[in-house]
Formats: sequence, structure tokens, C-alpha cells
Amino acid sequence: MNERNLLIVSTSTVHGKPYLSYCEETIKSFFEGAKEVIFIPYARPGGISHDEYTAIAAKKFNELGFKMRGLHEFEDPKSALAVASGVFTGGGNTFVLLDQLQKLGLIETIKTRVSEGMKYMGTSAGSNITGLTINTTNDMPIAHPETLDALALVPFNLNPHYLDPDPTSKHMGETRETRIKEFHTYNNQIVVGLREGSWLRVEGEYIRLEGPLSARIFEQGKAPYELTPEDDFNFLLK
Amino acid sequence: MNERNLLIVSTSTVHGKPYLSYCEETIKSFFEGAKEVIFIPYARPGGISHDEYTAIAAKKFNELGFKMRGLHEFEDPKSALAVASGVFTGGGNTFVLLDQLQKLGLIETIKTRVSEGMKYMGTSAGSNITGLTINTTNDMPIAHPETLDALALVPFNLNPHYLDPDPTSKHMGETRETRIKEFHTYNNQIVVGLREGSWLRVEGEYIRLEGPLSARIFEQGKAPYELTPEDDFNFLLK
Repeated sequence: MNERNLLIVSTSTVHGKPYLSYCEETIKSFFEGAKEVIFIPYARPGGISHDEYTAIAAKKFNELGFKMRGLHEFEDPKSALAVASGVFTGGGNTFVLLDQLQKLGLIETIKTRVSEGMKYMGTSAGSNITGLTINTTNDMPIAHPETLDALALVPFNLNPHYLDPDPTSKHMGETRETRIKEFHTYNNQIVVGLREGSWLRVEGEYIRLEGPLSARIFEQGKAPYELTPEDDFNFLLK
Repeated sequence: MNERNLLIVSTSTVHGKPYLSYCEETIKSFFEGAKEVIFIPYARPGGISHDEYTAIAAKKFNELGFKMRGLHEFEDPKSALAVASGVFTGGGNTFVLLDQLQKLGLIETIKTRVSEGMKYMGTSAGSNITGLTINTTNDMPIAHPETLDALALVPFNLNPHYLDPDPTSKHMGETRETRIKEFHTYNNQIVVGLREGSWLRVEGEYIRLEGPLSARIFEQGKAPYELTPEDDFNFLLK
């Protein structure tokens, strides 16, 4: 049985509010009982160092009552994960993040530990890697992981920071929806477009959408559609 | 001596105007004397077929007085390129485009032919691949080329459809400038942000910006800056 316990968050920060503040009650109850949460800083937003990034996350987690260390602080990250009760992977660049997890040989470690019940929270890039692959990231490919296969903690793909087309825009670059449709020319997994302010809560075979917004669901060969927090999302885990 | 002769265009289409119309005089004079222009349709915008995409490009090129066939129509694309006097690579998905060129073994063929004087025009993805690598594409990584190394027809990277930050936006995804700065955490080549409506014209060791707009230049460890069509761009080829 898969004991997964996941918090898949679109963004760490919503406009005009401090880091992680809009979902802090959710984080507190999600990690309740965890002595310490391990932070995975490898996505390096804006290229900041692992220490700098860990300090930002730890400040917030300390406020919420959790100890926090960065995974990079451990001489043997595999052993650290082997005993961790909770992990938070921050956002940044999804390619850099996945590349580093692959190079450190941590993909299987995290998958196994999550299936055993280690709590996993991600924001943005940290959420992207919970899907089957990172083919639906919005990030610039500034690193080149060996494969785009990700943690596959859920059997679909994520598109965090999902952005609706701007009808007033004169920019000719592809809309997010166009990009995901192109993805479905070559791939058939469902993609969940998760808007800023939304998160998915996964417990074993149950999944629900939380936050004030609906999510946009992309299935190959179908028109995209919206599901609200009141709708049933469990088919996504089948 | 490098006989390169390039037209590196940000976008095929500017807002409110038909396909390639805004730069048609430039295209006409660029390909002047070419009996036929070969179209490279592999970027497949929106996932359309090679035939469909070639029909769109050929319609426009025929209007401008050029014959056009798609490279996919030739049994042996290498031989077709060996005698081609001009090539146009259309936009779409940069990963899909590069992956296909790699799989068909055409990277070296195009590089060699361009150095011998075969005219090369690209728009969007077709411009992206003229740079050293495609690490600075805006596209979604829906394919996974073996390497992100590109044609290196010029010794820098491109960012077509360059988009200035929108000061009114409440979206928390990274701005284009932030993404390119992240790129420079790991890479040191210059990136040219080429706005829609702009193109670079390269002849041997000379390069200039054309169109009504300035370009944004990103150098590692420097604040980004603007260069106008009146400025000297030749340092980019040094």
C-alpha cells in the first residue's frame, strides 16, 4: 500500500504576501508531529546558494514551530532522508533541481521514503517533480538532466503557476494552454494546471484540490476543463 | 573564412498582421537569387504536421516569388541540404526541432553548409537553434534532445520573443530577465533578448540589429543593457 502523504503547492508566494504566509495553517497541520523538516534547496531560485535558500525557508518553518536543516548540510543525504519524517522541496529551476537529485542518486530514495509515509511538500519546481515527468515545467532549461522522468509520486504531470491566456496581450509567444496541447502531441498523461494560491493534498489513494481557485485539467484529445475544490479528483490517481 | 549569411528573426508574426508580412521585404532581398528555399518544419507549432506547416510557409514564400519544399519531403535530407541555396526554419517547439535535427544527423550538415554560404533564415525556434545552445529557449520541454547544444552559427545564445517584465502583473512566475540571470549562474555566453519585430542580420563577421526596437543584452556578471539598431553589435561575433 502506498502511504504517500503529499502537499503539492503551486507557488510559495502569492502576490503581495510574505513567503508561504497564505498557506501557513495548512503547512502547520500537514507537518504536525514532525520533529524536523528537511529542506531540499537544489532548485536555487535566482541562482542563490543552498545556504541562503535554506535560511529563507528555515526562518518561516521555525516560526511555524518546526526545526529545519538543508539536505545539502548532511554528509550523506541518503541517510538523512532515511530517517526524515518530513521534507519540503522549494521552488526555483526545475531542471537544476531534477539534475541535482539525479546526480546525487536521490530519486529512488525519495520515492521509497514517500511510499513509506515520509511527508513531502513541494512548491513550484518542488511540486513539478512530484509528477511523472518535468516535461510540463515552465522553467528555462538552464541545466540538462539525464532524463526528464521525475519522482512520479502521482501518476500525472503538474503545471504549477498555471496562467490563463491574457486576452489583451499582443505578445505572440505561445500561451500556457497551447504549450500543454503541444505536450499532448507526444505524451498522454493528464496535466493538472495548478493556479497560484492552489494546492493538491494527497493521502494514499485520495487527492483533493484546496485553496480558493479551480484547477485546469488537460487530457489528451479532450478540450481542457475546470475542476473546483468541491469536485472529485480521485480519478487522477487511478 | 566563414561565409555565413543569416537572418535571425524573433517571431514569424507580430500582433495583428499576417504571417511573415511585417518583414517580407527583408525576406525577399535576403533570399534574392535563390531558386528554391527549403523549409524545415520540424518545430511543429501546436503539433501540426510537417505537410500542414510547410503549406503555410510555402504559401507566403510563393507570394514572395520563391519555390519552397519541406525538408521532410526529401528521401535524403542531407543530399537536399547539400545543394540548397537557402533554408528557412520555422518556429514552434525548440526541443522538438533540435531533437529531430539530431536524430536525422543534420546538425553538422547545416553547420557546414551555412559556413559555405547557404542562406539560413530562422524565426523563433528556428532562430533559437542558431545560438550555441537552446538553454535559453522559452519553450516547454516536451521533447528531450540528447544535448542542448545547437547549431552554433553564432557564438552566443538567443532569447526570441523577448518579453519585458509587466510591472502590473500579479503572477509570481519568474520574469524572462530572472530566468536569463539564472542561466548565467551556470553558463557564461552572452544572451541576446530579441523582441518581437526585431531580427539580426549576420554576414560573415558582421552583425546588425534591424527592426524598430532595441535588443536586451545579457552578459554574465553585468547588469543587462539595451542596444539599438544604430549600435555596434560586431563584438558579439568576436
